[in-house]
Amino acid sequence: MLKTFDIQTNSHNELVDVTGQVQKIIKKSGISEGLCVVYVPHTTAGITINENADPSVRFDIIMECSKFVPEHDKEYLHSEGNSAGHIKSTVFGSSVHLIIANGSLVLGTWQGIFFGEFDGPRRRHVHVKILKG
Amino acid sequence: MLKTFDIQTNSHNELVDVTGQVQKIIKKSGISEGLCVVYVPHTTAGITINENADPSVRFDIIMECSKFVPEHDKEYLHSEGNSAGHIKSTVFGSSVHLIIANGSLVLGTWQGIFFGEFDGPRRRHVHVKILKG
Amino acid sequence: MLKTFDIQTNSHNELVDVTGQVQKIIKKSGISEGLCVVYVPHTTAGITINENADPSVRFDIIMECSKFVPEHDKEYLHSEGNSAGHIKSTVFGSSVHLIIANGSLVLGTWQGIFFGEFDGPRRRHVHVKILKG
Repeated sequence: MLKTFDIQTNSHNELVDVTGQVQKIIKKSGISEGLCVVYVPHTTAGITINENADPSVRFDIIMECSKFVPEHDKEYLHSEGNSAGHIKSTVFGSSVHLIIANGSLVLGTWQGIFFGEFDGPRRRHVHVKILKG
Repeated sequence: MLKTFDIQTNSHNELVDVTGQVQKIIKKSGISEGLCVVYVPHTTAGITINENADPSVRFDIIMECSKFVPEHDKEYLHSEGNSAGHIKSTVFGSSVHLIIANGSLVLGTWQGIFFGEFDGPRRRHVHVKILKG
Repeated sequence: MLKTFDIQTNSHNELVDVTGQVQKIIKKSGISEGLCVVYVPHTTAGITINENADPSVRFDIIMECSKFVPEHDKEYLHSEGNSAGHIKSTVFGSSVHLIIANGSLVLGTWQGIFFGEFDGPRRRHVHVKILKG
C-alpha cells in the first residue's frame, strides 16, 4: 500500500509535524501489524523523529544544524545557492520507519514525525508505504 | 514479530553495543530470511552501526559529535538543557535495518549495532521488529 | 531476495552513483511492489539519497562534511587514522530504503542513490534486499 500526501512549508528552514497525517493513513489501511516507511522524494528536505511537546526543541535542532551546515560558505560550488539544504537532507535522511502494532504507530511518549524543510517555502510531497507482517 | 529489551546506560553520552541482544532475538524467532528493524522510542537517544573492535572508535564518534553539536549553546531555547541530545538523536536516527539471511544478521566483518545515549544515564528501551521475506 | 554488487572507489572521500546498479537488480527480480533496502557492510562508508544532476552538489556535501567532521583532530584516539570515516559513516547511515511501485524505484525527479566512501580508495560491497508487499 502506497499513499502520498502534500504539505505546504512556510519558512526556509522548518520542521513540520506530520504525525497526524501518517497515523490517519495507517488507520484507513486497516493494517494492524507491520512496518510503515515515510519517504521524502526531495533533495533539499528530510525527515526525522523527535520531540513533539516543546516546540523550542524544533527551533534548537534547526538553529544548531545551521551552525554546522552553514547556509553560506564561499567554498560551495553548486550555483543554485541551496547546498546547505542538500547537506541537511543527507544528515537527516530521506526516510523514517515506524513499527505498526495493534493498528497504530509504535511511538515513544515524546516522539513525533517531522518533515524537514531546508529550502522553503515550497509545496512538498510525502510518500507512505505500508508493509504487512 | 515485535520484541522489546531494556538497557541501563551509565554515562551522559555513550555508545552501548546491543548486537548480542538483537542477534538473540533473531535466533529465537526462527526466521531465516527477512528484515530486522531496531527502533529506539526515545528523543535524546539514537542508534547506529559502526566498528565493534577498537572501543576508541566509539570514543571518537562521541567526542567529535559533541564538537559539532555542543552540549551548551547560549542560543538553545529548550529549558531542559538536553537540546544537544535531541539534535544528536536526529543526526544518528531512530532506527537501523539489518538484513537477515540463513537465520543470522548480515553484518560486515567490523560492524556492530550501537545504542546511542545522549542524555544519560537512564533506563532505555529498544524495539526489534522482524519482517519475513 | 538478496543480491550483492561491488564497486571500486577512486578517492579518499567520494560519492559514487549506484542508482543504475540498484534499478537493474529490481528489474531482474520481477518484483513490482515492495521495499528495497540498500545496505553497506562497511564502517568507514555510508549511503545516501541526494541530487543526481549537478555533480557540484556531491562536491559540496563531501567538502562541508569534512569541515564539521575533520580528517585530523588531535583528540582522536583510534590509531588507524580513519576516525573521520567512522563518524561520517554514522552521520550518513548504513542503509537507504526505496519504495518499489510498478516494478521501479519511486525516486523524486532529482534523486539518485550515492555510496559514500570516506576511507578510500577501496573495493567495496553493497547489499540489496527486496521485500515484496
